[in-house]
Amino acid sequence: MLKAVQILGCSSGLTIVSQRLTKTRKSSSSSSSVSFLSTSTNPLKLSTFSSSSLTSTSPRKTLCFSPTRMSSSSLPGSDPVPKSPTFVSGDVRKIKFCQWCGGTTKHEIPDGEEKLRAICTHCGKIAYQNPKMVVGCLIEHEDKVLLCKRNIQPSHGLWTLPAGYLEVGESAAEGAMRETWEEAGATVEVVSPFAQLDIPLIGQTYVIFLAKLKNLDFAPGPESLECRLFALDEIPFDSLAFSSIYVTLNLYLEDLKKGKLKFHYGTINKRPGSSPSDIRAFSLDYHLQP
Amino acid sequence: MLKAVQILGCSSGLTIVSQRLTKTRKSSSSSSSVSFLSTSTNPLKLSTFSSSSLTSTSPRKTLCFSPTRMSSSSLPGSDPVPKSPTFVSGDVRKIKFCQWCGGTTKHEIPDGEEKLRAICTHCGKIAYQNPKMVVGCLIEHEDKVLLCKRNIQPSHGLWTLPAGYLEVGESAAEGAMRETWEEAGATVEVVSPFAQLDIPLIGQTYVIFLAKLKNLDFAPGPESLECRLFALDEIPFDSLAFSSIYVTLNLYLEDLKKGKLKFHYGTINKRPGSSPSDIRAFSLDYHLQP
Repeated sequence: MLKAVQILGCSSGLTIVSQRLTKTRKSSSSSSSVSFLSTSTNPLKLSTFSSSSLTSTSPRKTLCFSPTRMSSSSLPGSDPVPKSPTFVSGDVRKIKFCQWCGGTTKHEIPDGEEKLRAICTHCGKIAYQNPKMVVGCLIEHEDKVLLCKRNIQPSHGLWTLPAGYLEVGESAAEGAMRETWEEAGATVEVVSPFAQLDIPLIGQTYVIFLAKLKNLDFAPGPESLECRLFALDEIPFDSLAFSSIYVTLNLYLEDLKKGKLKFHYGTINKRPGSSPSDIRAFSLDYHLQP
Repeated sequence: MLKAVQILGCSSGLTIVSQRLTKTRKSSSSSSSVSFLSTSTNPLKLSTFSSSSLTSTSPRKTLCFSPTRMSSSSLPGSDPVPKSPTFVSGDVRKIKFCQWCGGTTKHEIPDGEEKLRAICTHCGKIAYQNPKMVVGCLIEHEDKVLLCKRNIQPSHGLWTLPAGYLEVGESAAEGAMRETWEEAGATVEVVSPFAQLDIPLIGQTYVIFLAKLKNLDFAPGPESLECRLFALDEIPFDSLAFSSIYVTLNLYLEDLKKGKLKFHYGTINKRPGSSPSDIRAFSLDYHLQP
């Protein structure tokens, strides 16, 4: 299940992140960055979704970056970022109590670290926050793909691939199949990894597998209004739920046009200030392939 | 940084997970599963690390699975698992307080869900637990790879790739470069995704990128005793820190032998009852490639 995805969070820390990303891009002439701002309905006709930038055949595009160790000494070539309480992640200040002992928390940067953390004033434990993996299936069946119309918020009534949060105790492939079962009632075979798409602004990473139906017995689960196989030229690009799904389906169609499905790694950077519902307001950065 | 990885947790829920995995394997004749139990020092000579099973050239191996929706009705072909409080994940029972309001928690399976959760008795919020991503770099330089000798527990004094937990606000590639900077003082270019290796038992997913040094200025950070470039036939396979690193380096060498680096997805299932320090006591399951 994926009950609360892609709600854009914003904190002072994200400003720093944004600066780091900008710096990275400036020094990275060889990584690809594509903006999806067109309102055209069919991605196969999108002028901004150029196949040259999205599915370059170059096998070894590189991403350059000069991270900064948070210490008094810097190595040559590094680019110091001041150690500052503004470097926070997500909603760490909302963590006011220790979930293990119930003590109140203080918000500080621990020794040897660089980010603001919630630290228990009683037992001293740190409540780390880490990105979550969203796992799902791109199900192919006779030149069609299976989509689900969401019956929950956010993006109620919009179309998505079956996907949801990975649980502790399962692999990503198992999680993707479980979500497919829960949302589409479909039993599938995972065929191969297709994409990893990070969305740093909201602390999510999408891991999408290509999959095949084991039979045609599929039906919407409680979180779906409808499940349907769409021909490739009928995919409802104007009614998709999330940027990640928009990118995944576009990469898939681009690969099909080129005659070969590949694995894609990329970062979806939402346009600052854009609405979460504006799923085309982003750039796909650092699009890398094996 | 990666201060506490691969400590094997165990709960009643893992029993269920294990059963599911066994079931999956039985029905999945086409997925690859390899056991690494040899004590040979050089993986290039390991009889159990067969290139045919690890690096099959078949582009579309499949993973079959019949997940079970936790409801009274089951679709044909599904394999019901009873809705039971034993189906817990990780250490949910250790969460005794709500981190947002400080209320005490109860441990129940919420309506519409299937796993035991910690639910606040005051505000009603659920404390979800999700797997964490460990991101790192496999750095190639003139037919050598860069390894770090750990200066922290677990696996103090053993060799690893620079890697650590992904933080909210960064992409996996950025996190891998940050960890490389923190642990090896090295500035690198990420070249391509190389592997995603899930370890369900401990709720971790390794995401490893191939990378290149931008210069030769590297030096151990506080969490490393030493950083060194190893020739491929000198990689210290008897002194590696984690199963995930063992698998990654083996897959890399196998790919090199075949003349082509590929992307690898796989699940590392630790042998039940084995010590965390026995890094060869596992099977690599569901090894899939694009």
